Amino acid sequence: MKAVTCTATKLEVVERPAPALEKGHLLLNVLRCGICGSDLHARHHADEMADAAAAAGYDGAMRLEQEVVLGHEFVGEVADHGPGTRKSIRAGTPVVAMPVVRTRGAAHPVGLSVAAPGAYAEQVVVQESLTMPVPNGLRPELAALTEPMAVAWHAVRRGQVKKGQVAVVIGCGPIGLGVISMLKASGVRTVIASDFSAGRRALAEACGADVVVDPATESPYASLKDHGYYTKVSTLLELAIDSMAKLRRLPLPWWHVFRAAEALGAMPDGPVVFECVGVPGVIDEIIAAAPLVTRVIVVGVCMAPDQIRPSIAINKEIDLRFVIGYTPKEFRDSLHMLAEGKVDGAPLITGSVGLAGVENAFNALGDPEKHAKIMIDPRSDATQP
Amino acid sequence: MKAVTCTATKLEVVERPAPALEKGHLLLNVLRCGICGSDLHARHHADEMADAAAAAGYDGAMRLEQEVVLGHEFVGEVADHGPGTRKSIRAGTPVVAMPVVRTRGAAHPVGLSVAAPGAYAEQVVVQESLTMPVPNGLRPELAALTEPMAVAWHAVRRGQVKKGQVAVVIGCGPIGLGVISMLKASGVRTVIASDFSAGRRALAEACGADVVVDPATESPYASLKDHGYYTKVSTLLELAIDSMAKLRRLPLPWWHVFRAAEALGAMPDGPVVFECVGVPGVIDEIIAAAPLVTRVIVVGVCMAPDQIRPSIAINKEIDLRFVIGYTPKEFRDSLHMLAEGKVDGAPLITGSVGLAGVENAFNALGDPEKHAKIMIDPRSDATQP
Repeated sequence: MKAVTCTATKLEVVERPAPALEKGHLLLNVLRCGICGSDLHARHHADEMADAAAAAGYDGAMRLEQEVVLGHEFVGEVADHGPGTRKSIRAGTPVVAMPVVRTRGAAHPVGLSVAAPGAYAEQVVVQESLTMPVPNGLRPELAALTEPMAVAWHAVRRGQVKKGQVAVVIGCGPIGLGVISMLKASGVRTVIASDFSAGRRALAEACGADVVVDPATESPYASLKDHGYYTKVSTLLELAIDSMAKLRRLPLPWWHVFRAAEALGAMPDGPVVFECVGVPGVIDEIIAAAPLVTRVIVVGVCMAPDQIRPSIAINKEIDLRFVIGYTPKEFRDSLHMLAEGKVDGAPLITGSVGLAGVENAFNALGDPEKHAKIMIDPRSDATQP
Repeated sequence: MKAVTCTATKLEVVERPAPALEKGHLLLNVLRCGICGSDLHARHHADEMADAAAAAGYDGAMRLEQEVVLGHEFVGEVADHGPGTRKSIRAGTPVVAMPVVRTRGAAHPVGLSVAAPGAYAEQVVVQESLTMPVPNGLRPELAALTEPMAVAWHAVRRGQVKKGQVAVVIGCGPIGLGVISMLKASGVRTVIASDFSAGRRALAEACGADVVVDPATESPYASLKDHGYYTKVSTLLELAIDSMAKLRRLPLPWWHVFRAAEALGAMPDGPVVFECVGVPGVIDEIIAAAPLVTRVIVVGVCMAPDQIRPSIAINKEIDLRFVIGYTPKEFRDSLHMLAEGKVDGAPLITGSVGLAGVENAFNALGDPEKHAKIMIDPRSDATQP
């Protein structure tokens, strides 16, 4: 079968033997595979990524000099069942799978380890237990968004955004766009999106952002004061005095006064900010510019060490929640939200290529005005996205 | 009245005029005032602290060259009622108060601003609406712990520690000891405490820590694996495959399989770590050494810029929650937990001085083997803690 390998930054279409199936494996004929920002990053910085994964207890991530097949955002048709499988999903059924596979006794991430080749290929091996049929005749290119949309859905869930709370999305790459879509799908009324690129801002609007901001001319946090969020510690000091004075005038027992003080929000909610950029300095910028009690969901993967000012974060009671991946249920939710039309992934997809066009697609993704998500169709001959 | 002023790091007992009361003020005769780590820090680094407060929207914090009366952890007897007060608390009643006061139209933190002199003095001005009678005849030195214990209680509440979840307290100064006490008071079964000082470790045990660790010889995180916490991303990958395979063997509809997967903890809880040190590098050390999905409550105030590695925090799904202060209800809870004996503050108090002994007390607090919390009793002549 044909596959695109990445070896020391070089992308190449090669002929590879058909994959051997181990216990619990399924073989898929790939229908589509999305190109992820992690793939672009891994091409050049695999070693730093592998070091970070090793620090968190996974030793098998791809290294720059290894010959690896990338691709973890895929949809395919079941082509073969390995030994010890339940065969409940018949050959020919279109499926998606969480990109994790056990091979030679250890679990590896598909498309980010030499041990588990990915879906920049005509065929890919997946784990039967993590495979799910695509429902409702969902188009393959939309089904292939299950994985990145699951990342976004996990981030939104970790953000615990209330419907009336304002969400701010910093960076409108594919993950930022996915976060916007998922926030709107979960009923959040006001989503502010920020990106330097006009093209990306247009996509953010297409994904449902209520306000789009060019951070070169306007702060994405400027309007938060109008939404009632506190921007000054001094306001909280005033609030403590005044709310307690008011409550003590009520004919309530002592104890109830304090219950009421808490219920009235002596410690109010802040907005939820999604950091979807992942370059050094962005977290500290958010800490410095955001209102009090802001919850920051760090989705963008900053590989370099980064500097923050804890004293400002403390004075503002900032939360930083770092997120990665998703649970099996979130992956399943993402698939079904796409299949039921609760989220529309179509605006994200800006191009498509065959295996021979992968290198051109990687280059095209360097320009945020033109592209967000490019799909690989292994049956296509297209070389330009 | 006598007061201790701090001017350009110099502490001095001076005679000051009796404070003037504005609308809503009470005057207290100070019974006790605790010396806080912030006071020690403010003596030398007030300007950095004021800059951090200004960045979070409070401009009135003390500056190094100003003549300031420190002291925000106090108990006193009501001596006088200002204009426009309700006078529901009679003269002579022992009270504590949240250290926030409005003067000349703006709210200021008592004892950390030149506008609101603190309780290193015979008398202090407080806001009636934030004042609470001391119940149950609680001894003054314990009532004076209401404020630092409220800081600890707020941190514990922001930690949302479940009773079966393991809590780790890094640094056993007064706030770390308060956090340990509050964790045990709220029923958390296993509290691990870590400090380089043998004296502080003994106090941690007295406050209820179940395990004490000298980080020079043993990692405070070493035993967490035995408590079932995951330390390796690879374990989570294995878990996803195996838990889904098991669930799919059950006679359940598709949908329930995923519900069950989530309920079974595909994304498990981690431990909760309280950072009560506040020097550069500690947050990154915790990120590097803690298990997956650890929630870090940053209570220690690190004034310098600090470096973290977001890529490791992301791979581990770390939460960093920065905390400061407390709500009025948390302050009230703290007072009542002390008064009802639900927390015992006595182990924290290691000494007492009069106003003339404040400088000696500051010096003595430099040695963690000897002292944790020193109380100032303005009626005492003691000069050595």
